[in-house]
Amino acid sequence: MKEGKRLIHKLIANIKKTKAPIVVGLDPMLSYVPEQVQRQAFAEFGETLEGAAEAIWQFNKEIVDKTYDLIPAVKPQIAMYEQFGIPGLMAYKKTVDYCKEKGLVVIGDIKRGDIGSTSAAYAAGHLGQVQVGGGMFRPFDEDFVTVNPYMGSDCVNPFIDVCKQENRGLFILVKTSNPSSGEFQDRLIDGKPLYELVGEKVAQWSENCMGDEYSYIGAVVGATYPEQGKLLRKIMPKVYILVPGYGAQGGKGKDLAHFFNEDGLGAIVNSSRGIIAAYKQEKYVKYGPEHYGDASRTAVEDMIADIRGAL
Amino acid sequence: MKEGKRLIHKLIANIKKTKAPIVVGLDPMLSYVPEQVQRQAFAEFGETLEGAAEAIWQFNKEIVDKTYDLIPAVKPQIAMYEQFGIPGLMAYKKTVDYCKEKGLVVIGDIKRGDIGSTSAAYAAGHLGQVQVGGGMFRPFDEDFVTVNPYMGSDCVNPFIDVCKQENRGLFILVKTSNPSSGEFQDRLIDGKPLYELVGEKVAQWSENCMGDEYSYIGAVVGATYPEQGKLLRKIMPKVYILVPGYGAQGGKGKDLAHFFNEDGLGAIVNSSRGIIAAYKQEKYVKYGPEHYGDASRTAVEDMIADIRGAL
Repeated sequence: MKEGKRLIHKLIANIKKTKAPIVVGLDPMLSYVPEQVQRQAFAEFGETLEGAAEAIWQFNKEIVDKTYDLIPAVKPQIAMYEQFGIPGLMAYKKTVDYCKEKGLVVIGDIKRGDIGSTSAAYAAGHLGQVQVGGGMFRPFDEDFVTVNPYMGSDCVNPFIDVCKQENRGLFILVKTSNPSSGEFQDRLIDGKPLYELVGEKVAQWSENCMGDEYSYIGAVVGATYPEQGKLLRKIMPKVYILVPGYGAQGGKGKDLAHFFNEDGLGAIVNSSRGIIAAYKQEKYVKYGPEHYGDASRTAVEDMIADIRGAL
Repeated sequence: MKEGKRLIHKLIANIKKTKAPIVVGLDPMLSYVPEQVQRQAFAEFGETLEGAAEAIWQFNKEIVDKTYDLIPAVKPQIAMYEQFGIPGLMAYKKTVDYCKEKGLVVIGDIKRGDIGSTSAAYAAGHLGQVQVGGGMFRPFDEDFVTVNPYMGSDCVNPFIDVCKQENRGLFILVKTSNPSSGEFQDRLIDGKPLYELVGEKVAQWSENCMGDEYSYIGAVVGATYPEQGKLLRKIMPKVYILVPGYGAQGGKGKDLAHFFNEDGLGAIVNSSRGIIAAYKQEKYVKYGPEHYGDASRTAVEDMIADIRGAL
């Protein structure tokens, strides 16, 4: 174990340094990208997948440049890049690398999960290394990724194995932020909802994967379900909780207190649209599309104040 | 609705034509690729991610060339390409395109699924179109994809919407083939296992998405769980079932009869390792690594005979 290098330690150190338990979701819809940024990208690469990829990369870069000193981590949602095919995924990789250079922890929101050997391939490609002949490569190289647990332990274990070896970490879906998450996740099994059962399993996994105070096996619990967050906090005391659904999806600062432990740690709250498309909101409209990065910076400051106020 | 172009019709027509309800899983581990193929790829691209991608693409091409006339469909597992980063994903795309040129139906085994707007991005990128300025693009362009339903209806619906519009189809995870699939999927909810509940939901979705006899919303049920397959067949009468787990994972022809309807249709059985790495098996060792494509062809013929015998 190379304790000093564990990414969960870096995440917690970054949170303490910034006093901001937040993560900016880099989920760039093309419709969020101001026209002047699109225009420039299309001038160089045409109205093509390459042009779209360049536009979202330039958009991300400006937001990262304007916010990186305030925040501990970012969470690029790979779907928003994958939708633009190979060029989009190149922009994803560029974004991951750039954010790491800036000292940010990168949580790849990939929600992968499959049978054992297939999960092992995803884990190697995103968190670990692959061997080609005599060479070793780190294809995507995120610090953490999100994992879907529907297929059970032998789907999650290959990710855990790579995390152990590579000092990385996971956030496993437990109770997701979307309106229909209850359709399966809330169904009662022996009197307990499925998400509680998954939470208990995450707690077990986490115990064998401890950093110092917290495990490097985390969980995803939506801000839109504060009561469930309160319960899951108790069930998974050593688990870092990634909390999506704040802001645009409806979660508010006051809903968040119970996701945290008494040490003020244990949770990190994501906002995507609310930050990266801030310039489109009434509240920040004064910045105009040309200063979208400054709008995002102010939105980050407001989010931090809201969450500090709630804790 | 452009009935004639629905991919579920093409899938069924291909199955009737080949009299082979099977799909070859193009899941190329680098260790399956014979040395001479690796050597040639590395000579051109080095022992790099590009070299690995070229090796698996050449490997796939030979197997497709030697089997395409016997089979209705292929199922590339995207993880096996994604593990080699951007070059790997380029090999995935090349494989999708090549198989479609050969008249095969392509099932992208991507197991994606996320909150609504994110699922919409995955659906557009894999089954539909994305708009960039005045241009429309089809980044990955598979015929079907697999979807993970843990997040509920608003995760699945954006995929269904794109399928309706684009004549594509889905296979939704219900009961997966892996040993620990029961950990969550078998837990009883009001006396019924979770997979049955998911199966009922898939049956509902399928009813609104009918081709002729079968829906274009399918399900994944592992060959390793024949009893569950029998039950799910009844619950989802109009649903095509994609059956992984045959061969290397332990499923046998005689286990498969109950996955099919009385019309001899309704299921398609996947084998990956058992076909693409056939030349490594005792049974096909006579072909040697230099004739691995011929070994795969014989393995396909044997699989077809095994399944026909069981029906």
